[in-house]
Amino acid sequence: MDVRAYAATSPTSDVAPLTVARRAPRPSDVVIDILYCGVCHSDLHTARNDWGNSMYPVVPGHEIVGRVVGVGAGVTRFKEGDSVGVGCMVDSCQHCAPCEHGYEQYCENQATYTYNGLDRHDGTPTHGGYSERIVVSDRFVLKMPQGLDLAGAAPLLCAGITTWSPLRHWKVGPGSKVAVVGLGGLGHMALKLANALGADVTLFTRSAGKEDDARRLGAHRVVLSTDDGAMAAVAGRFDLIIDTVPYVHDLNPYIPTLATGGTLVLVGYLGELEPALNTVPMVMNRKSVGGSLIGGIAETQEMLDFCGKHGITADIETIAIEEINGAYERMLKSDVKYRFVIDMASLKAGA
Amino acid sequence: MDVRAYAATSPTSDVAPLTVARRAPRPSDVVIDILYCGVCHSDLHTARNDWGNSMYPVVPGHEIVGRVVGVGAGVTRFKEGDSVGVGCMVDSCQHCAPCEHGYEQYCENQATYTYNGLDRHDGTPTHGGYSERIVVSDRFVLKMPQGLDLAGAAPLLCAGITTWSPLRHWKVGPGSKVAVVGLGGLGHMALKLANALGADVTLFTRSAGKEDDARRLGAHRVVLSTDDGAMAAVAGRFDLIIDTVPYVHDLNPYIPTLATGGTLVLVGYLGELEPALNTVPMVMNRKSVGGSLIGGIAETQEMLDFCGKHGITADIETIAIEEINGAYERMLKSDVKYRFVIDMASLKAGA
Repeated sequence: MDVRAYAATSPTSDVAPLTVARRAPRPSDVVIDILYCGVCHSDLHTARNDWGNSMYPVVPGHEIVGRVVGVGAGVTRFKEGDSVGVGCMVDSCQHCAPCEHGYEQYCENQATYTYNGLDRHDGTPTHGGYSERIVVSDRFVLKMPQGLDLAGAAPLLCAGITTWSPLRHWKVGPGSKVAVVGLGGLGHMALKLANALGADVTLFTRSAGKEDDARRLGAHRVVLSTDDGAMAAVAGRFDLIIDTVPYVHDLNPYIPTLATGGTLVLVGYLGELEPALNTVPMVMNRKSVGGSLIGGIAETQEMLDFCGKHGITADIETIAIEEINGAYERMLKSDVKYRFVIDMASLKAGA
Repeated sequence: MDVRAYAATSPTSDVAPLTVARRAPRPSDVVIDILYCGVCHSDLHTARNDWGNSMYPVVPGHEIVGRVVGVGAGVTRFKEGDSVGVGCMVDSCQHCAPCEHGYEQYCENQATYTYNGLDRHDGTPTHGGYSERIVVSDRFVLKMPQGLDLAGAAPLLCAGITTWSPLRHWKVGPGSKVAVVGLGGLGHMALKLANALGADVTLFTRSAGKEDDARRLGAHRVVLSTDDGAMAAVAGRFDLIIDTVPYVHDLNPYIPTLATGGTLVLVGYLGELEPALNTVPMVMNRKSVGGSLIGGIAETQEMLDFCGKHGITADIETIAIEEINGAYERMLKSDVKYRFVIDMASLKAGA
């Protein structure tokens, strides 16, 4: 079937209307009418080929919330009318060790991403949530919990799970001391989730003036990372630091703030660690630097259920689809609190 | 009491005979007649002030095995004639969180090192195992298991525990896949211990010709890290890599050989990670780079008991104390298989 979408057709083109094909539903497929789609930095990176692997046309969007409008004959977990979500993946090999452990994001045969991927059965390109409808294998469809604002819940599918997965992997709970570096889409979710898990939560920021917002979002304290005295005051404090900063930055000032055995986990930055990481505080106190990528399907459902129970959604600014290019420009200036979400009614209205 | 020792008196002096004072035993002290002392790279670094913190005279030596010749009134765990060991620490604050968890090496108030430290009660300098006798608080004295060759057991007190601690912390056992980078004093112990713990063990080395020795020491395979094909063949394999290399080296080739969720732990290198560590494989597969420092007293005793049960000692070359300066030169050329141990009878004979 043909669906209306917004796509980038080259690295320099705006994201603009385009009709794309969705496959006819397979027996295990769920057909979803998209209501909302969050806007992630990855959308912009892929639209503009920042990572050099874009296959045009690119229909971005992997924070998808919608309503089931059809299911294949083999689908039992979903029915018409269900509120559902789709995140960054729509398939994986299902038989490697990571898949068997529920870590489809680390699939040894590469998970199929929601956009800019190739369907592993018929080789057709995958297209994301900037569109009317999407057809997804039921294994990769999430149940949205009752009672959550669906627009605000959309960013949980990427920003939420990206911070939830390390919080859970490193066993954050009551008594844990967690710090978050950076207050953007990911960072603001990290504050909310860590707080709701019962941790003592600190925000590291390079710019003053974020105190009130950070506290409202769940931080118990805010530390200006450019203030040596403030940094020294939290030396040896944190069991886990979630670093959401998406560009190169010096990790060395943060390592001393880890407790013995603590970990700084990168969820935003892909590239070389410069200036060079110094191993002295790592060896002297068994500290680690690690990375983490989104999350598996089971843990995504766990996170959604947790958010349902605790009433957690993202702080969003809703936009119409035709505002997407301006939204990208504002994202580049960090001018959003804290996530844009496209109301997909605008796509249908604009037909 | 005055004891004969060998000491460095300046960064450029040889290690040479010197008489040093040992404190009169306190109620909790154990007086140990030193039989053997292993020779660690740290001895050389401290003798030559490579780390800029040496307090002369320096009496090196922290792989100490000896016989109890006296105990303070409050000591119940040791008696005259017991075979005992002393490692890198002789005291710690005993009340911080790491101390309370048995990680005295990570003492927040800094453990007192066996040499080049200051006693935390009277401020006198600590002197190490290149001496006839040592006086140590009973909390920091280890029981040597029955049946182990005491000379070969001496390196367990530093080289052994330094590799044992990460093996245990990262829960290595049957089914674990472990790799070791570097085949020196630490590396050869890592092979033996990982093998005895039931792991599948690989040695990474930059120089061919170590195959037979590595297999004899416990490796199931040897991978030449300069051979791209051999490295690709072990992609995604290892749960834990113990990197024993003490100088700056590129970690990036090893990261892809970690399994999802795996950790590379540095136990030898203190300094900046150059060339820069690339985060892409870390984020894409939840891999970590960490550090680890020696081990706590309880885990040192656990390691010694394990070695007693499994008949594990270091492969050593025994030397007389007057050969120490030549031994340092050979260590710098990695010309030792795999640890020098000083037979302290040579010190007494040379009186």
